[in-house]
Amino acid sequence: MCGIAGIVAKSNVNQDLYDALTVLQHRGQDAAGIVTCQDGRLNQRKGNGLVRDVFHTRHMQRLQGHMGIAHVRYPTAGSSSPALAQPFYVNSPYGISLAHNGNLTNSAELSQELFQSDLRHLNTESDSEVLLNIFAHELQRLGKLVPSADDIFEAVSGVHKRCRGGYAVVAMIANYGVVGFRDPNAIRPLVYGKRETPAGTEYMLASESVALDALGYTLVGDVAPGEAVYITHDGEFHIRQCAEKVNWAPCIFEHVYFARPDSIMDGISVYKSRLRQGERLAEKVLRERPDHDIDVIVPIPDSSRIAAQSMAAVLGVKFREGLVKNRYIGRTFIMPGQSARKKSVKQKLNAIGLEFKGKNVMLVDDSIVRGTTCEQIIEMARDAGARKVYFASAAPPVRFPNVYGIDMPSATELIAHGRSVEEIRTEIGADWLLYQDLDDLLDCSAEGNPNISRFECAVFNGDYITGDVDQAYLDQLEADRNDSNQAAKNASAGDGALIGLHNDVS
Amino acid sequence: MCGIAGIVAKSNVNQDLYDALTVLQHRGQDAAGIVTCQDGRLNQRKGNGLVRDVFHTRHMQRLQGHMGIAHVRYPTAGSSSPALAQPFYVNSPYGISLAHNGNLTNSAELSQELFQSDLRHLNTESDSEVLLNIFAHELQRLGKLVPSADDIFEAVSGVHKRCRGGYAVVAMIANYGVVGFRDPNAIRPLVYGKRETPAGTEYMLASESVALDALGYTLVGDVAPGEAVYITHDGEFHIRQCAEKVNWAPCIFEHVYFARPDSIMDGISVYKSRLRQGERLAEKVLRERPDHDIDVIVPIPDSSRIAAQSMAAVLGVKFREGLVKNRYIGRTFIMPGQSARKKSVKQKLNAIGLEFKGKNVMLVDDSIVRGTTCEQIIEMARDAGARKVYFASAAPPVRFPNVYGIDMPSATELIAHGRSVEEIRTEIGADWLLYQDLDDLLDCSAEGNPNISRFECAVFNGDYITGDVDQAYLDQLEADRNDSNQAAKNASAGDGALIGLHNDVS
Amino acid sequence: MCGIAGIVAKSNVNQDLYDALTVLQHRGQDAAGIVTCQDGRLNQRKGNGLVRDVFHTRHMQRLQGHMGIAHVRYPTAGSSSPALAQPFYVNSPYGISLAHNGNLTNSAELSQELFQSDLRHLNTESDSEVLLNIFAHELQRLGKLVPSADDIFEAVSGVHKRCRGGYAVVAMIANYGVVGFRDPNAIRPLVYGKRETPAGTEYMLASESVALDALGYTLVGDVAPGEAVYITHDGEFHIRQCAEKVNWAPCIFEHVYFARPDSIMDGISVYKSRLRQGERLAEKVLRERPDHDIDVIVPIPDSSRIAAQSMAAVLGVKFREGLVKNRYIGRTFIMPGQSARKKSVKQKLNAIGLEFKGKNVMLVDDSIVRGTTCEQIIEMARDAGARKVYFASAAPPVRFPNVYGIDMPSATELIAHGRSVEEIRTEIGADWLLYQDLDDLLDCSAEGNPNISRFECAVFNGDYITGDVDQAYLDQLEADRNDSNQAAKNASAGDGALIGLHNDVS
Amino acid sequence: MCGIAGIVAKSNVNQDLYDALTVLQHRGQDAAGIVTCQDGRLNQRKGNGLVRDVFHTRHMQRLQGHMGIAHVRYPTAGSSSPALAQPFYVNSPYGISLAHNGNLTNSAELSQELFQSDLRHLNTESDSEVLLNIFAHELQRLGKLVPSADDIFEAVSGVHKRCRGGYAVVAMIANYGVVGFRDPNAIRPLVYGKRETPAGTEYMLASESVALDALGYTLVGDVAPGEAVYITHDGEFHIRQCAEKVNWAPCIFEHVYFARPDSIMDGISVYKSRLRQGERLAEKVLRERPDHDIDVIVPIPDSSRIAAQSMAAVLGVKFREGLVKNRYIGRTFIMPGQSARKKSVKQKLNAIGLEFKGKNVMLVDDSIVRGTTCEQIIEMARDAGARKVYFASAAPPVRFPNVYGIDMPSATELIAHGRSVEEIRTEIGADWLLYQDLDDLLDCSAEGNPNISRFECAVFNGDYITGDVDQAYLDQLEADRNDSNQAAKNASAGDGALIGLHNDVS
Repeated sequence: MCGIAGIVAKSNVNQDLYDALTVLQHRGQDAAGIVTCQDGRLNQRKGNGLVRDVFHTRHMQRLQGHMGIAHVRYPTAGSSSPALAQPFYVNSPYGISLAHNGNLTNSAELSQELFQSDLRHLNTESDSEVLLNIFAHELQRLGKLVPSADDIFEAVSGVHKRCRGGYAVVAMIANYGVVGFRDPNAIRPLVYGKRETPAGTEYMLASESVALDALGYTLVGDVAPGEAVYITHDGEFHIRQCAEKVNWAPCIFEHVYFARPDSIMDGISVYKSRLRQGERLAEKVLRERPDHDIDVIVPIPDSSRIAAQSMAAVLGVKFREGLVKNRYIGRTFIMPGQSARKKSVKQKLNAIGLEFKGKNVMLVDDSIVRGTTCEQIIEMARDAGARKVYFASAAPPVRFPNVYGIDMPSATELIAHGRSVEEIRTEIGADWLLYQDLDDLLDCSAEGNPNISRFECAVFNGDYITGDVDQAYLDQLEADRNDSNQAAKNASAGDGALIGLHNDVS
Repeated sequence: MCGIAGIVAKSNVNQDLYDALTVLQHRGQDAAGIVTCQDGRLNQRKGNGLVRDVFHTRHMQRLQGHMGIAHVRYPTAGSSSPALAQPFYVNSPYGISLAHNGNLTNSAELSQELFQSDLRHLNTESDSEVLLNIFAHELQRLGKLVPSADDIFEAVSGVHKRCRGGYAVVAMIANYGVVGFRDPNAIRPLVYGKRETPAGTEYMLASESVALDALGYTLVGDVAPGEAVYITHDGEFHIRQCAEKVNWAPCIFEHVYFARPDSIMDGISVYKSRLRQGERLAEKVLRERPDHDIDVIVPIPDSSRIAAQSMAAVLGVKFREGLVKNRYIGRTFIMPGQSARKKSVKQKLNAIGLEFKGKNVMLVDDSIVRGTTCEQIIEMARDAGARKVYFASAAPPVRFPNVYGIDMPSATELIAHGRSVEEIRTEIGADWLLYQDLDDLLDCSAEGNPNISRFECAVFNGDYITGDVDQAYLDQLEADRNDSNQAAKNASAGDGALIGLHNDVS
Repeated sequence: MCGIAGIVAKSNVNQDLYDALTVLQHRGQDAAGIVTCQDGRLNQRKGNGLVRDVFHTRHMQRLQGHMGIAHVRYPTAGSSSPALAQPFYVNSPYGISLAHNGNLTNSAELSQELFQSDLRHLNTESDSEVLLNIFAHELQRLGKLVPSADDIFEAVSGVHKRCRGGYAVVAMIANYGVVGFRDPNAIRPLVYGKRETPAGTEYMLASESVALDALGYTLVGDVAPGEAVYITHDGEFHIRQCAEKVNWAPCIFEHVYFARPDSIMDGISVYKSRLRQGERLAEKVLRERPDHDIDVIVPIPDSSRIAAQSMAAVLGVKFREGLVKNRYIGRTFIMPGQSARKKSVKQKLNAIGLEFKGKNVMLVDDSIVRGTTCEQIIEMARDAGARKVYFASAAPPVRFPNVYGIDMPSATELIAHGRSVEEIRTEIGADWLLYQDLDDLLDCSAEGNPNISRFECAVFNGDYITGDVDQAYLDQLEADRNDSNQAAKNASAGDGALIGLHNDVS
Repeated sequence: MCGIAGIVAKSNVNQDLYDALTVLQHRGQDAAGIVTCQDGRLNQRKGNGLVRDVFHTRHMQRLQGHMGIAHVRYPTAGSSSPALAQPFYVNSPYGISLAHNGNLTNSAELSQELFQSDLRHLNTESDSEVLLNIFAHELQRLGKLVPSADDIFEAVSGVHKRCRGGYAVVAMIANYGVVGFRDPNAIRPLVYGKRETPAGTEYMLASESVALDALGYTLVGDVAPGEAVYITHDGEFHIRQCAEKVNWAPCIFEHVYFARPDSIMDGISVYKSRLRQGERLAEKVLRERPDHDIDVIVPIPDSSRIAAQSMAAVLGVKFREGLVKNRYIGRTFIMPGQSARKKSVKQKLNAIGLEFKGKNVMLVDDSIVRGTTCEQIIEMARDAGARKVYFASAAPPVRFPNVYGIDMPSATELIAHGRSVEEIRTEIGADWLLYQDLDDLLDCSAEGNPNISRFECAVFNGDYITGDVDQAYLDQLEADRNDSNQAAKNASAGDGALIGLHNDVS
């Protein structure tokens, strides 16, 4: 997952983009970058690490300019080993910077085309670099000295024609403006808002509405599937549908796990979706075991707290914070002559004995992916004296990999891949395992906005919305993932700091 | 506040001390340090920043040895400007390292004595350096080549005779062992535990029991007021009362705010204390306004969540996570020609409109100190559409400064200093302000351990337990604080990184 | 001044390029960079500082590939304030990296053209970025998927048609090869050589032959004026004249000061040139003052040592190292409330009293630029007890600014600008001031290679060889220099580390 | 070798100590440190690396105070593996910092005593820490609140009684003053000087007079063998003989190699000594081969230049800079899967063919230690076309290890150890090998100051002046050296940065 933001304002945007990135930091803690445009020149700072570690005063002082874009990164499956910080940049035409959340499913073909037809060099495996060059090429073909809004939108149309997958993009054309667009299925989120100032209206694009809230921008709406927004350097606002065929099918996993609860996404309150998820879980409990013996509901902090609360409320069962999260996780160092020790879940969570001793405890999590943490927590609950340990997942079994920008394990690493619920229950050691039904999950979100016809939920049902994901693609994905693991290991032998051309950070 | 830990084990303690510090990190995020002893030599690493930023692989590889002590720091009122990382070290006698949580109230006199009678040079304003030198001098007076447990305890007795204030201490004597002790009022917490291994029993001291939990140590008990524990390098365990007159009066603020809820402190579950705090608040609501119109109870994350939950349960009112905390707070950069912008509460918290709109909301916080954040949150709740905004504090009004190691503002900066509850309510703009009664607060904790006769609660009632804190002392404290603010400002002009002799970090 | 190198080899070139940069470090200590090409991908590392400080093991491990280019930088007059590290990069076409020594005199016009006709964005003031984009555009126009040697040479011809000034260039086209070329007057130096290995012949380009010597390459020759060398990734060697009208007129200042004495440049031994400079000076002494009373000749270390030795030998006067250079110059820190102290020459040089006391001393330097150091050394000689202090400059009076890549002060800062030799003598306080005659200086170099018809020596006579440098240009240069000084001052307020898009170094 | 300095001034000494260290940097490039005293508090900065890399603005701003001491380090044989930066510090009594050049030959016994009788902990293998604690203990025994000059001198006498070896020391007693002293044989150098200011006289101690010259201090004289100088914080100057039996026997190797030529050491001009060394070599040539066929004399830069010049002058042979030194030596990186490549002498030196081709060349170096570089240079000379290659060493054969602070190889690594001159000649491949005679070498220095009765020259004749160095000691030295090599290798596996208690540098 990644977070993106773009601002065209009436004064320097550096602090606002920085603040936006801190608010979006939950979408990626791996790397961060900001590019601003001042008097036609681009100023850039990007690097690995948290926003607070990447930007120092000396960088901020350089990041002058009234418009800019920004990015926080979470490495995605598609971008193999040398994971690079965004935004990316090409100088021809105009000087374009681009930051992207999502994943292209046809980036291999596009890379080939760029090299052979467009003579454009790609220096990384990143599909963001592909996207940037496709967009740049589409603009360059028009050959305008000063690109109009029409030109920008035509280039975005060209992108939609050539690219497959999920993508939410902000790009900045030096001297001219900031553009934001979303793939024709609107898989990845992108909203825009405005802020009135004495000097005029300022515009902002961001992955989530919370970034707008934090900066005092008013949410205007979502960028629609296939739509593009273009704000010129002077603050003219343009919006246009750039795709021929669209389909509003946002990623359901945003509502399950990724998005901040206080975000409004495609018109849906994530918070309310999660409340409803808890309610549906409660109803399923009542359906399955009307005479259940749950004594207490304990969320696994932090993401399942909301669903667990509403679940407890509906069931009339005590809700208790029986697991305490250690917010300051450290590393496990490998000493010479030692093998790596695995960080136990004990250093991340601690059980409050009182809430477990002699009780039937229902643990609630947002989803179960690999299942390993899950298993350890159940064991921890038993060690704390629980009589019975039940486990509820607010999402259905995760059985397929994600190809639209969420970094999930490959199929074979998913505990639910090829296993029945009962088998999973045995595997994780729960006395009862309760999964949300997929229809229920979808209803929880759909209820928030009747205009959303469907959701991208292939991780649950294997139905990839872009239609181009076949078994061969998934097999390649699994192979790449294994390769990139290998590469990552090798790289870490060499200090870990992979340095690409676009990321020349000492 | 600070966190301390000490371990005497059968294998290297570096990773365990590191992990202990991450678990204690909530007690201080300002600086961190570890010293270990290997073949009589001390290995040290300390520096400013979070534990995860201070220790790199190369440091850990140097921190070899089967015993060691560690510290995380939160700057305290007593240690003016150049706040230094601990542990501190003196080479005479034996080579002693010491880390400390608390504050001495007579450090000025002791500094004078050390200089004039003991010819010991103090290079900082830190009372930890005073404590270390007092302890070192008391040991040196005995003049033993190999200090026995008796000698160690006699030296601790000497410390108790000379020092006033609150202090929980771990110290390591090179070659010989680790000692832990607590002031005669047991103001600051210190627990010890053990872990059985094939090679023998390992011992650990820590500020909070959660650190023992995380490392697989079993809590044996609290170090009693005035008591000292001494574990020799070989693992012999000694414990002795070293003070003539003791009084078990732990700091109540640990239960209100500082300690992790899953800690057991002086035999009291912090979690349970907080549950009881919420219950007592609910009872006060029912006493004061039996027909209250509270629609929803919203905690101010994270510290008040437990009390808010039990309060809601007793009242039978909905409990909702209506405020979302941004966990990645960034800086506000000062650009040339700009004045500093204040980070608004909007970048730390975001209100979920749904839970406020048209409702009477009871916000719950653990305590109210300066009152500024409180005021902004109330305003945020109104902006989110709340009909009425009520505010409950799980602790009574904070009216006096803390002199035993908690870094609180000086009296004049406390909103409750010299103000009635009604005046405070007006100041923060609440429609109703509910403070816990002091007796209720004390009962909530006392209920957990009937052996605790009283608690240090001077911030609420001005009754300083050590008996030596008069108005002159408090006036000096206020003056120092202003001076140190000044110094801090000057220092920051010079890059902020103050380097002392004990803290030679590049 | 800058130093450049390029290698196409049969194994990794990282260590060789690094070593080449250390040998060329005297040409620029300001910044350093290396780009290599591996499997079509470019790996880059560049940063401010000495070669030994810029490249760490982790960078070297990334700089894999059998071909690459490298650069050390000395900021030049033309590239205003935010001096950036090279090589520079564009991704379209092919992915091209370029490093450059020299200065374009028509970069302002070219920038305009690039922006308006070629839609290429320039993000810096650097003429190297201009050169790169001109070269890239000329290649792109040809539109080949795989550029042939002919295409490369045609693009270089295009560069020669559009660019004015002095430039020696190495560029790398990803996947394809390394190209080196020199402006039609061959103002800046560039040599090439080869090394035989079992796997085949390896080729190297470098600013000076010493870099070839150090790596075991055999000097083949100089790249001729207007000529280009292209070595394909596979090691095919191509060479062609790409300019219509050429003129071999290398910069004479290389022989006076910049080049290492052990370099052979345009067929001329720099060492021998300097020996001859000393001889000519001696002859001038004998002409001017046949009965001179010089007791001892003392060079100002290190660059004038060779000329001073031959001068002493011809005169039959003692040659003595009477001035000792401090090789470890530190900074002068500005403390709060202090104004900057000027580093006195005393901290750079120390006089050995014995060689001055009561003697008539002839000090010898390679040239006199601002004259301030010169004045201080003369004073130092007097303080050391010299009876008379004479001063000889191996070069004629420096009266005009350099526009071909040597960072010299603007005209008004040159002590000889608008002053007679007698006025200069008075200004610097010498008892006798002896300047080399320009014809003598030129003869000293020309004697080494009769094929060199003339030398670029505008700093002495104001005759700029490219014919396009008029007073308006020089006035603009002086204005820019003052502006960039201003900018530099402002920048240093912000930590000095200007970050450009091509130089994203933390 | 190390360099030390101490200043008691009327204003901040930070910049002056920094500048002094840059002037003394030739004595040690391994680590650097400064401690200043301000209002009784010590400010310290030390770290590995060159002076210019260790001290940044933020450090200098902290290093306030009118008195201070400083150190540059070159690791010595005695201080095994974890080589630590100085000054060192103890807080009892008074707070004392100390920096030291030299080596104690009885530090093992002294360490034992300190531990057992004085209960003082030593945390390193450094004899500087031993020296500091001995001095501290001797002062502490006197038990004065304010130590008088008499007390200081009595403590120095105590040091002389207990310590054996060569040592030049500067120490600072917090609040009170700076003391400098030299061992009873005055093996290591120490001079002092003064500077008049309107606010009063300022005093400075330094290893070499050049540091005084650079800062505008006037050399007053050498600290005599066994003598101590004490300057109080207020600027009172005291000097006293503190040893019972003294012997002025400075290390001859300072004159051969270590000292800067412009230094005056024990009243002797190093420059003149070296001129005389060249003259004596010339005389030996004329004695040995009156009809020699030397065509040219070429120094091996930089240290033999002076001797080579005077040698050439006496012989009437041409002197030429035929070897050019590369001043920017880089590292050789070890790539994964590669073995270490040895940096060839070709990357450090380059021969100018002209001066070798067909000539009989006499190469001159200051001394021959291992002989490996020597051998490579002779080969380089032959490759450059020399007909015959002769080699002269300004010092006699180095046959024994140094135990007084010069880091020389152990005996078995010395090419002259157990070899005749003829055998050495064969080994290095010279056509003629000429060594200075020991008596000649001593005369060259003694001529400068008739009061110097003898010189420490054990590396040439095995006669160790302190009388306590027997074969057992030397064997132990050789063993330690091998151990420490081992340890160093192990350490470098762990990033090389050994961190001691006194050197807590991130």
